[in-house]
Amino acid sequence: MSDTPATTLFRSRWVEPPANARELDSTALPAGFRAAGVAGGIKAQGLDVGLLVSDAAETVSAARFTANALVAAPVSVSREADLGALRAVAVNSGNANVSDGERGLGTAAAQQTTAASALGLEPQAVGVASTGVIARELPRQKLVAGIEAAAEALADDAASFSEAIMTTDRGPKRGALELELSGGRVRLAAQAKGAGMMSPRFATMLCFIETDAGLAPETLELLTGVTVKRSFERISVDGQLSTNDSVFAFAGGASGVEVEPESADELVLGQALDALLRQLAIEIVADGEGASRVCRVVVRGDTELVEPVARAVANSPLVKTALLGADPNFGRIMQAAGQALAGRAPFVVDLSIEGLQVESAGTALDLEESEWRELEQAVAAPEVELDLTIPGEGGETEVFFSDLTHDYVSLNADYSS
Amino acid sequence: MSDTPATTLFRSRWVEPPANARELDSTALPAGFRAAGVAGGIKAQGLDVGLLVSDAAETVSAARFTANALVAAPVSVSREADLGALRAVAVNSGNANVSDGERGLGTAAAQQTTAASALGLEPQAVGVASTGVIARELPRQKLVAGIEAAAEALADDAASFSEAIMTTDRGPKRGALELELSGGRVRLAAQAKGAGMMSPRFATMLCFIETDAGLAPETLELLTGVTVKRSFERISVDGQLSTNDSVFAFAGGASGVEVEPESADELVLGQALDALLRQLAIEIVADGEGASRVCRVVVRGDTELVEPVARAVANSPLVKTALLGADPNFGRIMQAAGQALAGRAPFVVDLSIEGLQVESAGTALDLEESEWRELEQAVAAPEVELDLTIPGEGGETEVFFSDLTHDYVSLNADYSS
Repeated sequence: MSDTPATTLFRSRWVEPPANARELDSTALPAGFRAAGVAGGIKAQGLDVGLLVSDAAETVSAARFTANALVAAPVSVSREADLGALRAVAVNSGNANVSDGERGLGTAAAQQTTAASALGLEPQAVGVASTGVIARELPRQKLVAGIEAAAEALADDAASFSEAIMTTDRGPKRGALELELSGGRVRLAAQAKGAGMMSPRFATMLCFIETDAGLAPETLELLTGVTVKRSFERISVDGQLSTNDSVFAFAGGASGVEVEPESADELVLGQALDALLRQLAIEIVADGEGASRVCRVVVRGDTELVEPVARAVANSPLVKTALLGADPNFGRIMQAAGQALAGRAPFVVDLSIEGLQVESAGTALDLEESEWRELEQAVAAPEVELDLTIPGEGGETEVFFSDLTHDYVSLNADYSS
Repeated sequence: MSDTPATTLFRSRWVEPPANARELDSTALPAGFRAAGVAGGIKAQGLDVGLLVSDAAETVSAARFTANALVAAPVSVSREADLGALRAVAVNSGNANVSDGERGLGTAAAQQTTAASALGLEPQAVGVASTGVIARELPRQKLVAGIEAAAEALADDAASFSEAIMTTDRGPKRGALELELSGGRVRLAAQAKGAGMMSPRFATMLCFIETDAGLAPETLELLTGVTVKRSFERISVDGQLSTNDSVFAFAGGASGVEVEPESADELVLGQALDALLRQLAIEIVADGEGASRVCRVVVRGDTELVEPVARAVANSPLVKTALLGADPNFGRIMQAAGQALAGRAPFVVDLSIEGLQVESAGTALDLEESEWRELEQAVAAPEVELDLTIPGEGGETEVFFSDLTHDYVSLNADYSS
């Protein structure tokens, strides 16, 4: 359970460190926020109940949820809450509270009302989230007692909170920044979890975002929507859309610095949030169950087709095992792209791996021995980039994905029982 | 490389042994057919070039090919042949001849003309097929020499031919039957290969079907189409559509027994072909790279939705690893179904595993401890059946799929290099 060194938040070459930003300790919270994580006994061991609260009455919020038709009870309950004016969120790991009918909905409601009561809030001001095994009863009494204990343990950092939301994560995923805006300094922080059941939207992932900047609800809503699309919606570990995905963003305003819509400050805040969420999203992929390597596939061409082609490459177990093997077997990339383009021959596709072109108009280039060596070195790196051009114009997308490893198989063959 | 015991062709409980049929040695060929497999040096070791010929000038044929937009050169060449009147097929394993542009097309053409010349046929009467690594040059001289050697080695059984078409297969997949028709006895045989890159149509699989019954071209076309749909199009190892899938069916007529359209004999022959192809298809799944267990998911409900739901379950790495772990983690089945039904809530779905209902209207049932034990035993069997009912009516489908194992990861991380 190693921590993220505070000095190297933006470790991925695919994330541009934002301007006007200074890194804080990764567990820092913006002014006016408190959080805690406790061991409620839902998991066999470790922290499993988390509580996050914004003390400012004028807090605005935004949220995003899974698109799966099978929706977890906490997602159903959260959707009915006052999503633009949430003040807190109560989370548990170890059990996803899915497929448990009225009982599960009752437990998610108890999760909400217990947190509200402990924090002196209306239930409508509390969001709830769960992550863990599906289709098992979530022990309500343990959860309720855990939330009450967490309310007693609230502190001004996210250290224990960010651990309490983990399932198969190798470690916490979090980051905090101080931003220089025209009106003064504000803080921005986020804590995420997620490893398996990731994609095609934004994964069995949870993310909690806090800022002490003052924002209009529409501004927070806009920034959250745009940055989630560019981060958690662009990753895939195993092509599996979770029943529990949730992102909650809070702006409390305790810094006293207001961010006006369409201002330079909004841009600074937006870019910082974008960088932070992209970095956390890539960390989720890098921590994809058993992952050893992260790949970015960029697809350019027909606007309708770039997305299915990128997803087909990212979710192909053949591409993912070749990535594990550091094997420049690019025929599998072409095969996956061709599958997504089924019925749309001719297959006039270009492919480059780390800038070295390997296919031109659907035909493999005759590489020199030295080029093969170069390719083999490139695909053995921790981050690998693929650039694919398909017929058509106007579209461009990217998907970050992990390799498929023995640890993924072991973790998921043994997870529930 | 174990052989199929002649007495136990229909090993799967999901295949009804056909009426009026007697099993022959699995390597048997119908009268008028000859075949051979030789070591041409395309693979590092083992047989890798196969040739099959029907001696009767009046032979009729039918064929089916992959839907991938990236099409192997042999598929392109075969599609231009006289597909209703083929007399022979020349096959190689070890290299799929894909993405090699004009050179690859030239090699596939040489494959066709060499076989035609060695057999005294027109090139238009010869189909070609390849299987193996993608996007590498297929050594043309080795292939040509191999075909010439195979033409010299033709025999009246399919033993070496069915071995020459294998790639990562653990053993040959083949079967032969003698059928009692109203006009006398006919033989029916098929040889298939396939293990990885399987689905969603009919897989990196090749299948060659022979009968010495006399059939009109339309009858063979019809029988081939229907039975391929019910067999190779209903399996998935890894959700990957190959660039090379090919099925070739030949009816030579050497038995002197004619099968009339819409006759009782056509039904007997059709049912036998159906059983034979379903058995071979299930063997392909059971031999899915590293597979240890085969699962059938049956989905009933809305006609448009049964197929995507069945595919989502069959291709979920979470469902497939749970199957490996003999873990009755049915929440993952529900999650995968919900992903395919995204945007179509409410999620009113029933699920039974081996006849034991575990979900009703989207809610997990409270199982007794004894029922959990029963479930755990059921999912540890070599064949596991799932029955899923989704909203809507009129649709029913099935998909056979394998588990995702460490051997799949090892095989595919190391395959090309």
